[in-house]
Amino acid sequence: MTVNMVVVGSIALDTIKTFRETRERILGGSATFFSTVASFFTKVGMVGVAGRDFDNKHIAFLRERGIDMSGFEQVEGKTFHWAGGYGEDFGDATTHTTELNVFETFDPKLPESYKNAPFLFLANIHPALQKKVIEIVNKPRLIALDTMNFWITNPQTHSILISILPHIDVLFVNRQEAALLSGERTLARAVRKLLEMGPKRLVVKLGELGAMTASKDGWFFAPAFPCAEIVDPTGAGDSFGGGFMGALAEKGDLSPASYRKAMLYGSAMGSITVEDFSIDSYRTMTRGHIDDRFAKIMEMTKVA
Amino acid sequence: MTVNMVVVGSIALDTIKTFRETRERILGGSATFFSTVASFFTKVGMVGVAGRDFDNKHIAFLRERGIDMSGFEQVEGKTFHWAGGYGEDFGDATTHTTELNVFETFDPKLPESYKNAPFLFLANIHPALQKKVIEIVNKPRLIALDTMNFWITNPQTHSILISILPHIDVLFVNRQEAALLSGERTLARAVRKLLEMGPKRLVVKLGELGAMTASKDGWFFAPAFPCAEIVDPTGAGDSFGGGFMGALAEKGDLSPASYRKAMLYGSAMGSITVEDFSIDSYRTMTRGHIDDRFAKIMEMTKVA
Repeated sequence: MTVNMVVVGSIALDTIKTFRETRERILGGSATFFSTVASFFTKVGMVGVAGRDFDNKHIAFLRERGIDMSGFEQVEGKTFHWAGGYGEDFGDATTHTTELNVFETFDPKLPESYKNAPFLFLANIHPALQKKVIEIVNKPRLIALDTMNFWITNPQTHSILISILPHIDVLFVNRQEAALLSGERTLARAVRKLLEMGPKRLVVKLGELGAMTASKDGWFFAPAFPCAEIVDPTGAGDSFGGGFMGALAEKGDLSPASYRKAMLYGSAMGSITVEDFSIDSYRTMTRGHIDDRFAKIMEMTKVA
Repeated sequence: MTVNMVVVGSIALDTIKTFRETRERILGGSATFFSTVASFFTKVGMVGVAGRDFDNKHIAFLRERGIDMSGFEQVEGKTFHWAGGYGEDFGDATTHTTELNVFETFDPKLPESYKNAPFLFLANIHPALQKKVIEIVNKPRLIALDTMNFWITNPQTHSILISILPHIDVLFVNRQEAALLSGERTLARAVRKLLEMGPKRLVVKLGELGAMTASKDGWFFAPAFPCAEIVDPTGAGDSFGGGFMGALAEKGDLSPASYRKAMLYGSAMGSITVEDFSIDSYRTMTRGHIDDRFAKIMEMTKVA
């Protein structure tokens, strides 16, 4: 099966502390969450690096999900390790430690079989690496990019990020990043400014309130599904991305209505991810359950 | 014309400082915003108190809007004066001074002609006064109540508030009040808890992100209209209430679809209010413009 979507991002081992419990060195990373989620919709090729401590069972899980791992490298050293925690509101994470390890010298190499993939997701990595990937690939139909406050506030990486925005079809940010990158304090002004900076479409992730998208086709808000219990919000944003991009890549339809449905799939996948630690929700997940969650969120948008 | 909706709340003179300009002693107060907005939909009767410094031109404006003023009192003393400001994000207001003046001894008296009104909005006043009004009126079809952190955190007023919640059809809170009143930190848990506390329906106002409603009919999110420029956010919440309640009272239809449309009218009126100081947006407002704004917000909810 030809790779239809490529993701370039991090592979991590996360130590997560919630007010209920702590889990040590569980499977994480943007590329992991994204590709796991998107694998329910389309054939995904993953580009990422792990160290020798990365358990074979993780690789086996990703392969079982049908993910093409020819862009995955395992090198000498330790896997990227992030330790962080959440308060009872499960809002912004508090970082305890970040050990980049092998991720520090990550240099994404795309297998030939990935270069013609029509969908590309550049997860949150150094903008210079995101730029390099854009230059390598053969004109994808859709390039989406995620970033973070760290790259936005550093003047050097900021200028690289700014230079690639005109090549981006969908820019993913959260509310705080929208303000930082646009220099505008209200959402309405930030959205307008960001669209002037080059990306054809913007997606602002709003946590427990869902996400909004804006483009020349207008604005649309996707509600969040009200999970009875949040277990671990790590990966919710990349899961949103995986659901959004997966739904688009599955149909290959880039109409305004298709983008709005993709927002609801993004919301659905974010809500499923937070119901368990790591990618554990997906160990026994079915497409039927995903479509049921999508339908429930769709219901929440219907006026009459 | 019979009074179809009664509002009991504050009448104020507000001194507003934004990063652009300061306006002194302009018309404000929850009953003012609510009744001005709701007057575009139905016959409103207002209950409130002002002092001798309250300009006749304000009374003339409210009368011109068709508002029944027989519940309005003007007494010796000065009108409630609130001074506050907003930062560039137009988020939570910073209070500079609060002079309750005649509002401190406000004792709402309902004219006989108000007691059979089918719709009642208890704006943010002392819970004991809200309770008194509920006991005076003759079984309205719908009682809505707004409150604030001040009444929630004071143990004495908290217990009164708790005691009236089972008599409330629609409880209005913002995100912070939802957490305070429920004792729950995530939105999903707070909403479930608040519905268990008695009100049949909850509306959580979310500022620039719109508002959500929850009841046994499910959850619904109403997006906010992305105003190009926010001039003054004062009164946005009461304007949301006025649009929501006004739309329900106009049709008299309390179906789930009607509530969802009411949410969009609430969002529309909130967005119109913030485009100017005080109730100034409504000095030249037409119902056509309101319905146009409603249609634009409706468009933002449509998936396909």
